[in-house]
Amino acid sequence: MPAGEFDLIAAINDRLPGDGERIRVRSGDDAAIVEPAGASAISVDAVVDGVHFRLDQFGARAVGRKALAAGLSDLAAMGAQPGEAYVVVAAPGELGDDALLEIADGLAEVASRHGVTVAGGDLVSSPVLVVSVTAVGYEPKGARFVTRAGASPGDLLAVTGRLGGAAGGLALLEGNGGPVSPELGDPMLARQLDPAPRLDEGLALAAKGATAMIDISDGLGADAGHVAGASGCRLEIDLDRIPLQDGLEELAGGRGAALELAASGGEDYELLAALPPEQLTAANEAMDRTGTELTEIGYVAEGEGVTLKLPGGGEIQPRGFDQRRGSLSGSG
Amino acid sequence: MPAGEFDLIAAINDRLPGDGERIRVRSGDDAAIVEPAGASAISVDAVVDGVHFRLDQFGARAVGRKALAAGLSDLAAMGAQPGEAYVVVAAPGELGDDALLEIADGLAEVASRHGVTVAGGDLVSSPVLVVSVTAVGYEPKGARFVTRAGASPGDLLAVTGRLGGAAGGLALLEGNGGPVSPELGDPMLARQLDPAPRLDEGLALAAKGATAMIDISDGLGADAGHVAGASGCRLEIDLDRIPLQDGLEELAGGRGAALELAASGGEDYELLAALPPEQLTAANEAMDRTGTELTEIGYVAEGEGVTLKLPGGGEIQPRGFDQRRGSLSGSG
Repeated sequence: MPAGEFDLIAAINDRLPGDGERIRVRSGDDAAIVEPAGASAISVDAVVDGVHFRLDQFGARAVGRKALAAGLSDLAAMGAQPGEAYVVVAAPGELGDDALLEIADGLAEVASRHGVTVAGGDLVSSPVLVVSVTAVGYEPKGARFVTRAGASPGDLLAVTGRLGGAAGGLALLEGNGGPVSPELGDPMLARQLDPAPRLDEGLALAAKGATAMIDISDGLGADAGHVAGASGCRLEIDLDRIPLQDGLEELAGGRGAALELAASGGEDYELLAALPPEQLTAANEAMDRTGTELTEIGYVAEGEGVTLKLPGGGEIQPRGFDQRRGSLSGSG
Repeated sequence: MPAGEFDLIAAINDRLPGDGERIRVRSGDDAAIVEPAGASAISVDAVVDGVHFRLDQFGARAVGRKALAAGLSDLAAMGAQPGEAYVVVAAPGELGDDALLEIADGLAEVASRHGVTVAGGDLVSSPVLVVSVTAVGYEPKGARFVTRAGASPGDLLAVTGRLGGAAGGLALLEGNGGPVSPELGDPMLARQLDPAPRLDEGLALAAKGATAMIDISDGLGADAGHVAGASGCRLEIDLDRIPLQDGLEELAGGRGAALELAASGGEDYELLAALPPEQLTAANEAMDRTGTELTEIGYVAEGEGVTLKLPGGGEIQPRGFDQRRGSLSGSG
């Protein structure tokens, strides 16, 4: 028994926030014991160094933050109240204990913000850093989870927040794109390195009658395609109405390029929701209380697939990151 | 959207057994939706190619089997009824779709045996194959989960089945050890390549008053140490009473070497339980119905740590695989 190993796990546990009310036994036994708060949404997501992030660009703390935020974003898209998370860290020996503790700090930062308990975990050796998160959320009393499958013709489509920020942040990390001021660039970097799962927004939209929701992790076009496929409808999106991250036009070198980046770049973790038109006012009021804007960008029609309409007429084909070779993939 | 990717995920889903009664929405949305059957035991475990297995020795199907069996073994050690599993497969592109489908077949084989639904998953690109399993089990009606923490002085210690088989199987895979006949060698290989989580046995022991349990994944000595630490007791184990895998003495080159292999080799996934002595008869009767033997190997005393007593007198120090650099580590 390598004593140092157990000391490290104890040190990691010390960094994490205390147990939530549902926890009977946390980390340290064969399994955690939890009293679930009713129907549960459970998502699994993994991020891999060199594929979904570069440790040398991100730093270990941002890796922990983003891995948990991505898992919680799946819960947001269901309209779930966040509950527990379980985290596997597979790490090279040369990474060092300090980096593992920084990953724990990143997990703790996001867990604390959202009242989530990291109830269990596993630390294993691996030639490459992989962080896998299982996120568990609960169905609010009196509400129903929202899947991708409930959109119907006549519903309007709306997105939370602004798009393209994470893609812009990635471009900045990689030294691509036109010069932008720190006032515009820093928020883009934050969208990439410290994304915000839209949990309050997902709960608000679910309460106000959203018929389908998805978090935009693969890119608006690709994720709209998932909703279209699951709902058996066609999604018509007006590219010109997409709310752009401030500074994205400067970075991308023009509005057209910025719109394409916003429609195809993933990892913004905003929500795309379908709503009956008569619910829009109530949804907007609920969203006001979250401080996040809601923008109508299109509608649901009979048919299949996604149409991304260009400002001057014409269309582009939706595309997104390759799920297996590239970006975070959907899960659950 | 890479169509081939979604076809592959659909093909994987087709290989997996149908939904259990608790599943409202399986794979394919942002998260699975499950109606939990009360208090839940949740474990996470990951296995990494070159660390916990070698794909060239195991084959892809055995990787899937073992990853899920290891997760279910954690549930067995809690006395949990198995429920759902969620699986992350991080795989190199060059692995090929056939190998991914074989991993799914291995998962399906173990899931079907134990009535488990693979309710969600994630498939991502990675330079190295990693399979991470989240296993969820439920507290049986009228019973309580058994942790590592309830052993007290005067309890006896018992193990299910026989030990050392998985270590023997690994030695055979690596071409080590004395010659053994296929009649003895094949069952050892099966202990390594197709381990059996002791779910029925865990339920039986929990029902008959086990005060503490753990699954032997790191080695008897190391795992006994976990129980000793959690329970605040000393565990006295008589090495000579350890039930050995048939053929282990031939393979190891003598009884002493075989006993040491059985005490230190991990991954047998047998259960070590502490029981009040008056419960032993009832526990043995319950175990008879599972077809698995139960062997008394020692007792719980005041103090701390683990004593492994040698047949001729004297002691050896417990040791086990290094959790971080080597074997499957405990979780939850």
